[in-house]
Order: sequence, then C-alpha cells, then structure tokens
Amino acid sequence: MSAVVSEAPSATTTGLREGAFGHATALACRECGHQVDLGPFYACPECFGPLEIAYDFPAVTREEIEAGPANIWRYKALLPVPTDIESSPNTEPGFTRLLEADNLARELGIAKVWVKDDSTNPTNSFKDRVVACALSAARELDAKVFACPSTGNLANAVAAAGARAGIKTVVFIPSNLEKPKQVNSAIFTENLVAVDGNYDDVNKLASEIAGEEEGGAFVNVNVRPYYAEGSKTLGYEIAEQLGWRLPDQVVIPVASGSQLTKVDKAFQELIKLGLVEEKPYRIFGAQAEGCGPVATAYKAGVDAIRPVKPDTIAKSLAIGNPADGIYVLDIARRTGGAVEEVTDEEIRAGIVLLARTEGIFTETAGGTTVAVTKKLVETGQLDPTLETVVINTGHGLKTLDAVSDQVSAAATIAPTYAAFKSAGIV
Amino acid sequence: MSAVVSEAPSATTTGLREGAFGHATALACRECGHQVDLGPFYACPECFGPLEIAYDFPAVTREEIEAGPANIWRYKALLPVPTDIESSPNTEPGFTRLLEADNLARELGIAKVWVKDDSTNPTNSFKDRVVACALSAARELDAKVFACPSTGNLANAVAAAGARAGIKTVVFIPSNLEKPKQVNSAIFTENLVAVDGNYDDVNKLASEIAGEEEGGAFVNVNVRPYYAEGSKTLGYEIAEQLGWRLPDQVVIPVASGSQLTKVDKAFQELIKLGLVEEKPYRIFGAQAEGCGPVATAYKAGVDAIRPVKPDTIAKSLAIGNPADGIYVLDIARRTGGAVEEVTDEEIRAGIVLLARTEGIFTETAGGTTVAVTKKLVETGQLDPTLETVVINTGHGLKTLDAVSDQVSAAATIAPTYAAFKSAGIV
Repeated sequence: MSAVVSEAPSATTTGLREGAFGHATALACRECGHQVDLGPFYACPECFGPLEIAYDFPAVTREEIEAGPANIWRYKALLPVPTDIESSPNTEPGFTRLLEADNLARELGIAKVWVKDDSTNPTNSFKDRVVACALSAARELDAKVFACPSTGNLANAVAAAGARAGIKTVVFIPSNLEKPKQVNSAIFTENLVAVDGNYDDVNKLASEIAGEEEGGAFVNVNVRPYYAEGSKTLGYEIAEQLGWRLPDQVVIPVASGSQLTKVDKAFQELIKLGLVEEKPYRIFGAQAEGCGPVATAYKAGVDAIRPVKPDTIAKSLAIGNPADGIYVLDIARRTGGAVEEVTDEEIRAGIVLLARTEGIFTETAGGTTVAVTKKLVETGQLDPTLETVVINTGHGLKTLDAVSDQVSAAATIAPTYAAFKSAGIV
Repeated sequence: MSAVVSEAPSATTTGLREGAFGHATALACRECGHQVDLGPFYACPECFGPLEIAYDFPAVTREEIEAGPANIWRYKALLPVPTDIESSPNTEPGFTRLLEADNLARELGIAKVWVKDDSTNPTNSFKDRVVACALSAARELDAKVFACPSTGNLANAVAAAGARAGIKTVVFIPSNLEKPKQVNSAIFTENLVAVDGNYDDVNKLASEIAGEEEGGAFVNVNVRPYYAEGSKTLGYEIAEQLGWRLPDQVVIPVASGSQLTKVDKAFQELIKLGLVEEKPYRIFGAQAEGCGPVATAYKAGVDAIRPVKPDTIAKSLAIGNPADGIYVLDIARRTGGAVEEVTDEEIRAGIVLLARTEGIFTETAGGTTVAVTKKLVETGQLDPTLETVVINTGHGLKTLDAVSDQVSAAATIAPTYAAFKSAGIV
C-alpha cells in the first residue's frame, strides 16, 4: 500500500469487505472538511490537514454497551472496526480500573479524584487501545507488515498485538530508550530497530519508509486515523464507569496530543448519542518542562507550537513536534482547562505520591500527570471543589530507573527475630 | 492479635461485626475436620493441620454474578468477605483476560489452548487476588499492620493494597531478589525489609514475628485461611469465561501449592452450586527443576515431600518446603493429572514462546508453566486432544534479567531510509 500524501483514493480501497470499518463512512479533513473514501490515507489531498474518521452512528443504548465484553469492543459500534471484531485474535485491551482516589484527593486538596488506570492493559499502557484499532485496519486493508515509530510503549503494544495476530511486525525506537521498554518489544518481535536519534527523527524515518514501501501499515502514520480512534475508549469508559455521566475536570498527558483530543471527542459523541447528559467539563494537558511545547504556547497565549528538542525523563512524552498540539490548545482554551508543565524532580515525586496514596506504580508520564494536577491546584488553574479524573497511561516497571534511587529497602537483616527487633521497623 | 497455634479462639474474635466474613461460618481443619470460630487462626488446635474456611453458601445464580463488577468481587458471595466489600478501598483485582491461544496451541500440538493471563492484575500477578481477601480479613479483625514474607510478587501486592487502604505495611523479601520486584514494593511502602536468606528463611522469620507481635495480619501466615480463598477466583473466572463450563485440563504453577488446590476447590464449589455441569477434569502442577520437591515426590510415587534448597531463575516458585505440596500430589493423582518440572533453559524458552505466539510477556513462573505444558505433551502425560487452560500468574517486566540476554534489537541504524534498507529487515 502506498501512503503518498497527495494521492486520491485508488485501487487500494477496492476489495474492502462490507462493514470493514463498521459505521465509519469516510475520512474527513479536520481542517477543511473535505472527505475521501476509507483507505490507508492520513492527510487531506486538498489542504494536507489531518484526516479523521466520519461516522453514521446507529442508535446505541447503555444496555447494549453494558452487555458487551469487559474490553474496548463493548464500544465497537462507535469505532472503525467490523461487527465481528472479537473473533479476530487481538489483545483484548481496555475496561481498566477507574479508582476512587480518596487518599490522593486529600494530598492534592481536591474534593474528589478518580484515577483511570491504564497501566493494567495487556502491555501496560493505553497504547494497547489504539493499536487494537490499527490492527483491525491493517487486517481489513490486507497489510503485510504492522509497524510503528515509538517512544517505547507503542512499540510494546504493536509487537505484542502483531505476535498474537500472526502478522509480521517492525518497530522503530530511539536507541537511547529505557532497557525494560526495549526488552518488552524484543520479546515479541524479531524486528526491533533501534535508531540513533530522538523520537522525532524516528518518526520522520518511519514516514519516509511508509511512503516508499508497499504493504506496510504504520499504525501512527498511514493508518493513523483508525489508530487514533482507539483513544476515544478512554473517554467512553470514564463516563460509563462514573455511572454514565461526564466528570467536571480531566487531566491528560500530552505527547502528540492525540489522546487528549480523542477524550474530548468521546465526550461529545456520548452527548450527541444521548448516552450522557450534556454538561460543562474542563480538559487539562500535562507536559514535562523538558518537552513542553504545548504548555509553552498555552502560557504565551499563542496558537502556533514551536518544536523543541526533548530533554526529560518522561520519554514517552518526549515528542518535540506534537502533531495534535494545536488541537490540544484549542480544547484546553474552549473548555476552560489549561496546559501545564513540571520538572523531572516533580515528575519523580508524582510517581511516589501516586504509589504511596493509591497503590499504583505509574511510569514517568503518569508522574507528570499527577505532578501537573498538583501544580494546577497550587496555581489556581484547576478548581479543587470539582470532581477530577487523572489519567494514568503507563506502568512504572518500564521506567524503573527514574525512581530506583528514590526508594529502597528500609533495612537488610539476618533472618532472626532479634535482628528484626533491632531494625526498629515496628 | 496473637497467632499462637495451640490457643483456642478467644477474645480476639469477639467484637466482629455481623457478616464480617460473608457466608463463612467457621474455620475447619483440612486434616481432622475439627472446627473453630472465625478469627486470626491458621492451624488446628487438635492436630495442627491447616485451617480452611467453611461456608454456608446461599443460592447463587449466574445472572447475579454476571451483574457484578469486572473484578473478583463479582464472586463475593463465595468468599470470606462482607457484602459491602466494594465500598472499602482495595485494588479491585481480577476478571483478567482468558485468551484463546491458537498460535500457542499449534506450537504445542494441543487441539485447544486458553491462557488465563493474571499479568494484567493491579500489581501484575495473581497475588492481588489473595491479598484483597487478606486485606478484608485484616480490616475486619482490626489489624494495625499488614505484612508478609514474600518471594516478590506477594510483597508488591501487599505493599500496594496497604497503601491504598491506608494501613501500615511491612514486607519481608530475600535480599537477593530481582531489582524490579524490590522497587515495585519499595515504591509503595517505607517498610520493605530485605532478609539475608532464602524464602523459607524469610517465611520462618515471619511466622516467628507473627507469634510474638500483637496486632499484625501476616497475609500468608495468621490470616492465611482468608487469603488463600482468593485463589478460588481464578477457577471461577476460567469457568465463567468459558461460558459457565469446566475445562478438560488445567496447568498451574506450584510454589506453596495453594493456588492449585484452590482452583480445584473452586471447580468443586461451582459444581455443588449448580453453576456448571459436573465433568471430569485433570489438574497438572508445574515446577522448576531447581525447586521441584512436589514433582520429585509425584514421580517417585510417594506421599511425603522432601524439602529442597531452591536454585532456579523461577524465584517466585522457589519455595523449598511447600505448605500445600501434599494436597497438590493428592489432586494431581485423583484427577488424572501430573506434576512435572523443567530446567531454567526450558523456562527461558517458555517465556519467549508465549511472547512470540500470543503477545504475553510472562515472568519465569509463567515460562515454567508453558515449558511444563510442552513437556507434558511430549511425555504423553497431557492429552493433546483435550482443551487445556494454562495459567500465567505474573509479568515478565519483573524478571527481565531472565531473558534480557535472549532477545535484543535486530539492528541499530542511523535515521535514514538508506540505513534502513541496508539493515535488510524487510
């Protein structure tokens, strides 16, 4: 399959089976509204804007969704996937815990906090959601290779999902990536490619390969419109798990910015479908100071995002030129939210705070989100009297080095009661 | 609370609130049947046999269970927990994936294989299930400290659950434990105690402390009867997720042996309650050669288990003197199963096999279970024409060192298309 941007849909989209993309009807440009047929396209042939999935949703009831499986396919009617999606081997991600986080709320001085914990997904990050949708698109488009550029979590998810689906995978990562994330990809695929450069270099290379090579589905390049829709399930689940209602405030980490925009889209869809009552909500973005181009633009009150060279321990957020940054700005401003950034030191403290209060071991991205939530309260940007959902997107076991010097055994003792008593633990 | 073995139930059990332990009625000795009141007891005052929970189960329907939450509390009527258990902060474990594993089945030469994947639990092992039940008991017994000796996974689960519940935790581990498992406990608790010795030394020390100190709930010592019941939920879930029926064969790792006995108990309870049809099933135990006391006894055809000094990479199975080993032998023999053991090399290969076929990254214990399943087929002990469930109890990110030399990047390249083409990946 060719992913040349300016080409109109061609032979590649013929041969699609009926209902290959569920209730999706076309790809629509987010900028100019121009529509093209469903296929492996991601950029508007008219204005080069990003293409998104357009749907003709059927009537969907809460009861139909609740009768579905305990994974993202309970929302299959709202995703670009066929109705028989459960019968194709996939990692069955989603429907993760939404925990009432009273201890964290007390520490942050917020009336009510919930943590949406995506660290318990199959490969321990929210990426399993988007990859499951991309895998379905790859299958329907008859792709021979399933691939991605990644800061780590996406590579883990693509390599695992591809192994299970029996499709060849090739995953590209920056060569300086954390060892656990490298092993967590190499264990699933023979084709882990380390690239000497940062994520933006890796991403650029992947786009070039996607344009040159036939038959490859790059999950976040030429099947990105399908892929990105998977993040909507985070928004659907939050609403359903709150008892079919929207929260007042949500804090979401920002890498490319796609996830934040899709949670907003999910909320809007639920309102339109009559599945939740319409109400105001505020969406906040969280970045690291070492890679905070969206936060910088937000604070400066400008619309343009100036790319940066990332330098932060939050490697999964280290995208210096975020594709959806301008839409994040737009949503934060429209909903009365904000985009804030924190230091690496604050990120480490955020990881420990979440662990000690709620028993969740998050990675650096989650530490960023918790630390930004704290800062948003302290700076008066987030209303502490309102119910707030904090999204944890990944697992601390993948970024162990970030905290392994922060915590340790209280004592090392001989195996005797006397030694225990001497240690003064209780 | 005192845990002196020979003491009869006393003042410690007064003050229990009505329904503190759900439909549990007493503690009954597994050996002699003698019953004592519910309380912090684990050994029979008559014969020193292990105490188990006795119940007076109500009528329970499939529909009632299916209407419950997507975690172990959907089975709360069958556990020693109060009916309002969901309202107390806990990690909400369970209802993990049961994956149809066709790729693995093909590799193993078995007609049908399912993998029950407990690596996606809150702290990434099945221990979150048992700890959630122990936490409930600790709360009802008004314990001031929540503690355990552990090979790693249990410490992770206790420290996390205790943090969330707001109860002081103290966890004891062998000082040579894998770094990820150490950090994954220390992140949650200030009181991680490393003990110079193996697990059996740590366990002995914990029993001594439990006997000497008041007010502590050692999850796998003095509240062990409540704790152990949590493993039944693995059996319940397998049956429910198969569409309310029992599998033909199950392969389960054996450390203390408790989990295997509880899966059998769960199947028996489901039959008695009329929730599944009665049918024959075979239960197989999996051990590492470096710590295979139960496999050794099984092969020798004897009833007594001779303790061993563990020497294996499967540290979470490294219990040289397994408390429930004799019951494992009994169940394997009674159901037509077996207990088998594999080498560390086979364990590593088992980890890679599961990852490459099903996209699941298991720890050494899961590698053991997969490798044993392979050996059971090769030696004709497991019937390859029958449906088989393989239980994966933990996560590979915790035992990274076991495989980090086995897998690696295929290439490290410059960020150019020419460099990619030269690498010969596609």
